[in-house]
Amino acid sequence: MKFLSDNAAKVHPKVWDAMKAADAPDSPYDGDALSRSLDDRFSALFGRDCAALWVATGTAANCLALSAMVEPHGAVICHREAHIEMDEGGAPGFYLHGAKLLLADGESAKIAPEAIARVIDPIRDGVHQVQPHAISITQASEYGCVYRPEELTALARLAKDKRLGLHMDGARFANAAAFLGGDAAEAAGEVDALSFGMVKNGAMSAEAIVFFDPAMADKVRFRRKRAGHLQSKGRYLAAQILAMLEGDLWLDNARAANAAAGEIAAAAKDRLLHPVEANEIFLISTAVERLALREQGFEFYDWGDDAARLVTAWDSREDHVSALARAISAL
Amino acid sequence: MKFLSDNAAKVHPKVWDAMKAADAPDSPYDGDALSRSLDDRFSALFGRDCAALWVATGTAANCLALSAMVEPHGAVICHREAHIEMDEGGAPGFYLHGAKLLLADGESAKIAPEAIARVIDPIRDGVHQVQPHAISITQASEYGCVYRPEELTALARLAKDKRLGLHMDGARFANAAAFLGGDAAEAAGEVDALSFGMVKNGAMSAEAIVFFDPAMADKVRFRRKRAGHLQSKGRYLAAQILAMLEGDLWLDNARAANAAAGEIAAAAKDRLLHPVEANEIFLISTAVERLALREQGFEFYDWGDDAARLVTAWDSREDHVSALARAISAL
Amino acid sequence: MKFLSDNAAKVHPKVWDAMKAADAPDSPYDGDALSRSLDDRFSALFGRDCAALWVATGTAANCLALSAMVEPHGAVICHREAHIEMDEGGAPGFYLHGAKLLLADGESAKIAPEAIARVIDPIRDGVHQVQPHAISITQASEYGCVYRPEELTALARLAKDKRLGLHMDGARFANAAAFLGGDAAEAAGEVDALSFGMVKNGAMSAEAIVFFDPAMADKVRFRRKRAGHLQSKGRYLAAQILAMLEGDLWLDNARAANAAAGEIAAAAKDRLLHPVEANEIFLISTAVERLALREQGFEFYDWGDDAARLVTAWDSREDHVSALARAISAL
Amino acid sequence: MKFLSDNAAKVHPKVWDAMKAADAPDSPYDGDALSRSLDDRFSALFGRDCAALWVATGTAANCLALSAMVEPHGAVICHREAHIEMDEGGAPGFYLHGAKLLLADGESAKIAPEAIARVIDPIRDGVHQVQPHAISITQASEYGCVYRPEELTALARLAKDKRLGLHMDGARFANAAAFLGGDAAEAAGEVDALSFGMVKNGAMSAEAIVFFDPAMADKVRFRRKRAGHLQSKGRYLAAQILAMLEGDLWLDNARAANAAAGEIAAAAKDRLLHPVEANEIFLISTAVERLALREQGFEFYDWGDDAARLVTAWDSREDHVSALARAISAL
Repeated sequence: MKFLSDNAAKVHPKVWDAMKAADAPDSPYDGDALSRSLDDRFSALFGRDCAALWVATGTAANCLALSAMVEPHGAVICHREAHIEMDEGGAPGFYLHGAKLLLADGESAKIAPEAIARVIDPIRDGVHQVQPHAISITQASEYGCVYRPEELTALARLAKDKRLGLHMDGARFANAAAFLGGDAAEAAGEVDALSFGMVKNGAMSAEAIVFFDPAMADKVRFRRKRAGHLQSKGRYLAAQILAMLEGDLWLDNARAANAAAGEIAAAAKDRLLHPVEANEIFLISTAVERLALREQGFEFYDWGDDAARLVTAWDSREDHVSALARAISAL
Repeated sequence: MKFLSDNAAKVHPKVWDAMKAADAPDSPYDGDALSRSLDDRFSALFGRDCAALWVATGTAANCLALSAMVEPHGAVICHREAHIEMDEGGAPGFYLHGAKLLLADGESAKIAPEAIARVIDPIRDGVHQVQPHAISITQASEYGCVYRPEELTALARLAKDKRLGLHMDGARFANAAAFLGGDAAEAAGEVDALSFGMVKNGAMSAEAIVFFDPAMADKVRFRRKRAGHLQSKGRYLAAQILAMLEGDLWLDNARAANAAAGEIAAAAKDRLLHPVEANEIFLISTAVERLALREQGFEFYDWGDDAARLVTAWDSREDHVSALARAISAL
Repeated sequence: MKFLSDNAAKVHPKVWDAMKAADAPDSPYDGDALSRSLDDRFSALFGRDCAALWVATGTAANCLALSAMVEPHGAVICHREAHIEMDEGGAPGFYLHGAKLLLADGESAKIAPEAIARVIDPIRDGVHQVQPHAISITQASEYGCVYRPEELTALARLAKDKRLGLHMDGARFANAAAFLGGDAAEAAGEVDALSFGMVKNGAMSAEAIVFFDPAMADKVRFRRKRAGHLQSKGRYLAAQILAMLEGDLWLDNARAANAAAGEIAAAAKDRLLHPVEANEIFLISTAVERLALREQGFEFYDWGDDAARLVTAWDSREDHVSALARAISAL
Repeated sequence: MKFLSDNAAKVHPKVWDAMKAADAPDSPYDGDALSRSLDDRFSALFGRDCAALWVATGTAANCLALSAMVEPHGAVICHREAHIEMDEGGAPGFYLHGAKLLLADGESAKIAPEAIARVIDPIRDGVHQVQPHAISITQASEYGCVYRPEELTALARLAKDKRLGLHMDGARFANAAAFLGGDAAEAAGEVDALSFGMVKNGAMSAEAIVFFDPAMADKVRFRRKRAGHLQSKGRYLAAQILAMLEGDLWLDNARAANAAAGEIAAAAKDRLLHPVEANEIFLISTAVERLALREQGFEFYDWGDDAARLVTAWDSREDHVSALARAISAL
C-alpha cells in the first residue's frame, strides 16, 4: 500500500485515450493542432490571456518560467524548503546562468510578504550584492498547505511594488485549487507565470507553463528549445494536458487525492505537523509507530526522526486509504 | 502523402503496448525496474560495458553526452551542417556553458580525420584559443550517409591520439546500422558516447544516451537532473526503449524506412544529391518539378533552390512510397 | 628591435604621472572622483550622452559590452578573424552564457552589410536556429584597416533595420580615428557600445567601455562586478583613461604609431597584404626574407607561410623604424 | 581620518618602484620574466610546490580558484557571511556556471568542521540535491578573526575525508599570517588554493592565486583568459606581487595595520564584538556615540544598529590611530 509519492502514480485512462487519439502524423514540435490550441484553452480556464507551453518536468517548467523574469546577475526569493532549492539538483543555477536563490522562512513552507521583506530589505543597493528579480511560491506548498486568495493578493502587491516577477510552482496546483473550491484563477492569483503540474495528478510526461504575459512565452520558446525540451512529437504532450483539462479531470483527480488525504488526516487529528489542505500528510510519529505501520504493509517516507510523510494520489485505492486511517487511529 | 520528416511519425504499436504494460506504480525517476535494466540491455547489444540514460529529446541526448567530455573552456569539432550546429537552437552553448563548436567540412555531412586536422592543427597551443576537447559525428549523417567501420576506426584513432572525446549523434543510428548489416557495435565503432535515437524510429518520447565509459554516465546523471530531464515517471521512457530493442524492433523499423527510401532512390537515380544509405533522399529537382510533385499530393521540404528533401519513416505507407517513386520517374 | 605587438609597449609618462597623482585614498571601486568624471569626459569627446566604465582588458570590454545586447539564446555576427572569435579564449561564450558567434567574411577583416546578410538571411525564423542579436565590428580591423564613415553608416542602418545591437571593438580605435582625421565621433559612427582601447596605446591596465545608451551601462555595472572586474582601487584605472584623453594624448600616440607604420609601408609598397591604415603591416615575404630580417635584429610574428606581421606602437623608436624600412627596401 | 576600509589605501612606494622598474617592453600576458618567476617565488615562501597566477581582484581570485575544484552541478560550503556570498555580486554563480554556495554558521565568520557537517550531512546522496565539491574559508575572516593552525588542520582533514577541495580566501591573509607569527605556510595550512590578497595591503591591482596542486593552475590559466583577466601587460601585476614579497613587505605592511588595530582595540576593550586579531575592529557603540566620533572627523561604516566597523591599513597614520583610540576611550 504505497503512500510514498504522487509522482509515480499511474496514468489516467482518459490521458491514455487522448494520447492514442493523437497517434497520427501531424506537424512536429509544437506546430500540431493540439499544441496550438493550448493558449486558448488556458485563456478560457483562467479568464485572461495566457500563453502556455508544455514541458516534460516540473523542474524544467519552474526554471524556464523563472528564466523569463530573472537576469543572470539577479536572484529569486523562495522558501528555504522550496522544491527549486531542495530538490531540483541545482537546475535554477543552470537555467538562470548562476542567478541565486534567496531563502525566506515561513510556516508550512509558505512565505508571507513580511518574510520576503526580511530577506530583501537588508540587501544593499548596488552591484556588490545580488539584487532580487523574482519571487517563487509553491501552491500547494511543499507541506501541502494552500495560499489563500488574500495571501496571493498581498504577495502580488509586494511583487509589483518591488518590481519583482512572481512565479508559482504549481506541481500540486490542482490540489490547491480543489481545496479552494475549484476556481483556477483564484488559486493562481496575480502571478506572472504558473508551472501547472499535471504529472502528479494523472498525466504521464507533460506539465504546462502558463504565462499570463505572453511576451514571456515568446522568450521562453527559445529557451525551451535550447534546453532540449522541445520534443518533436509534442502532440502527445499537448494531448495529455488537454485531457487533464477536459471536463475538469484535473479537479476531479485532485479532489480524489485530497479526499483520501482528508480521510487519513481525520484519523490523525492530534498528530499533524501541518494542516492537511491538499494531498500530503505529515504525521507526527515515533520510529516504533512507523515501523508498526510499515509492518502492516504501508510504504511512506520518514520525515526527519519524528514524523512520516504520507502522500495520496488520484489513484489511491479506497481500501488502502481506509486501512491506513484505521491503522493510524490504532497507533 | 507525407515525406516531410520521420520526426513526427506515429508511435509503434509495440511501443504503446510496452508503455501500457508499465502503467502500474513503481519507483519514481530512474529507480524503476525497467530503467534499471537499461545498462544490461545495452551492454548485451554492444558486447561491452555500457551505462545508458533515457532522455526525451535528441538535443538533450547530444548535449548531455558532450557535457561529459568537454570543459566549458573547450570545443567540439563537428560538421558544418551537424544538427548540434544547425538545428538545436544553441543548446550546446547552454549545456556546455559556452564551449564552442568548431566546424569541419566534408562530403555528405561526414567528416574525415583530414578535415578535423584542418580545423585543429592551426589552433595555437595556449590559452588564447579555444582548445578542442571532443569530436561529434552523426551516424547516419544529416544527408543520410553512413560512416563505414573503417572510417569510424580512423576517427577513433585520431580522437585517441589527440586525447579528444568521441561522440556519435545517432538520431538515425538504427538506419545506419541497418544499412551496415545490423550490427550495433559495428555501426557505433569506438565512440565514447552514443545518442541512440528512438523517437524518429517508432518511439514517442525516449532517446537513449549510451556511455561506453560508465564514469561518464555517473557525471551525466547529475547533469540530466539539473537540466530538468529526469522525469518522475521514467518507467514509460525506459519501456519505450526496451520495446524498441526487443526482438530487434529498432532494426526492423529502420529497415522498413531504408527500404522505402531505396525504392524512391531507385526511381531517382540521376537526381540524387547524396547517396541514399538511410532514409533520406535529396532529390535534385526544379521548382516546377517540385510543384508537380506537390500537386500530386506529396509533402516534403525544399532543400535550397535545386533540390527536395524526402524522408521516409518506419510507418511510410507502401502505396505512398510506390506512388512517389512512380511520380519521380515520370518527372 | 621589437615589432611583435603593441600590446606590450611601455606606459606613457603622462599616464604614470596621472596614476601617481591619484595615489591618495579616495572612495573605493568606481566611487572616486576620477571614475565619476568619465561619463562627462566621454560625452564631451563624442558629442553625445555616454556612460563609460573602465575594465582591465579588451576581452572584458568586448564581452561586457556585448552582454548588454545579446541574450544567452542569441548570437553575435562578427568577422571570421575577429578578435572575439580568434583570440579571446572563448570569453564570449562565457560572458554571453553560450550565445554564439556567427562568422562573416570580408576583405581585410572588415565586414559589409552584404556579408552580414549572407550570414543572417538563411537563418530560419523560429526556435531551432540561433537568432542574431548583435553585430560586432573592429575599428581598426584585425588587419589594421579602417571603416570609413559611410561604411559605418551603412552598418548602423542594417543594425537598426534588423533590430540588432552594434558593437565596436576599438582595441586600436585611436589608430583608426587618427587615420580618419582625429574625430572620435566620426570613427565610432552610430554604434551602441565601443570598447575604446587604451592599453595598446600607452596605458597600463585600463580600457574604457563607452555606452551610447546609458541604460546599457547600468546593466553592465552589475555584470562587471559579477565578472570580478570591479577593482577596488578603480581610481588608478580612471586616471589612466583620463590621462589618455587629456590634451588628445590618445591621438598623439596613435599618430606616432601610424606614422611609424606608414614609413615602413612606404618601403614595402609591393609587398603589402593589406592597405596600411593604422599601425600594422602585413608584409608579403618568404621564409628566407624573414630570416634575413630577423638576423638583422628585427622581431615580429610570421603570418602564415608567406607573410610577416609587423606592429608599431606609440613608443616605437624612430631609429628602429627607419632601420626596418631600409631593411625591407633592401630585401 | 579614514577608517572605512583598507581596500582604497594608497599604493606602497616600493610597489610603485617595482612597477616603474618593469616599464620596458617584455613578452605580453604572463610570458614576461617577472610573471614567470612567480611559481618559484611562492614555492620558496610556502616551502612546497606552488603555481601562482596574478589577477586584478579578489573576486576573480576566489572564483577562479574555486572553478578548479567545483563542477557546475556542485556546491561550495562557506560561511553565511563570507565575501563570496555577501559581497561579490553573484560572481561564484557566474564563474562556477550555477554551482551553489551552501551556507554554514560559526562565530566571527569562521567555520568549524562541525558546522560544515551540519550543512552537508543532511544532503541526500543522489542527483536531486546539489552535492558539495569544495569548502571555502576566509583567513582572516570577514570579522578579522584568524584560523589557528590546528583549526586549519581539522578542516583539511574533513576536506580530505569528504573529498572536497579546500580554498582559502586570503584577502587579508597577510594580516592573519602576521598575527600567527609570520609563517605563510602555517597560516595557509593544507589548502588546495589560496587567494593571496595584495591590494588591501599595499599593492595597486594585483592579487595572487596560489595553487598547491599545479594541475589546478593549468586548468585555471584557460579560465583566467576566458574571463578576460589575462592582462597583456601582466608584468606590472607580477611586479606588484614580487615587490610585496620582497623583504617581507607583505608582513611588514600587515604588522603595521594590525598594530594600529591593536592600539584601537586596547582602547575599546569592553566594546569589542569580535576579538581583534587582524586589522578590523567591530566596536559596540550607540548611534549617539558614533555620531560623536564622526563629529571628531573619524570616517567608518556602521555595522548594523549597535556597532561600527573600523578598518586600519598599512598606511594608517599614527596620529589618526592614536586620536581614534583616545576618542574611543573618552566615549
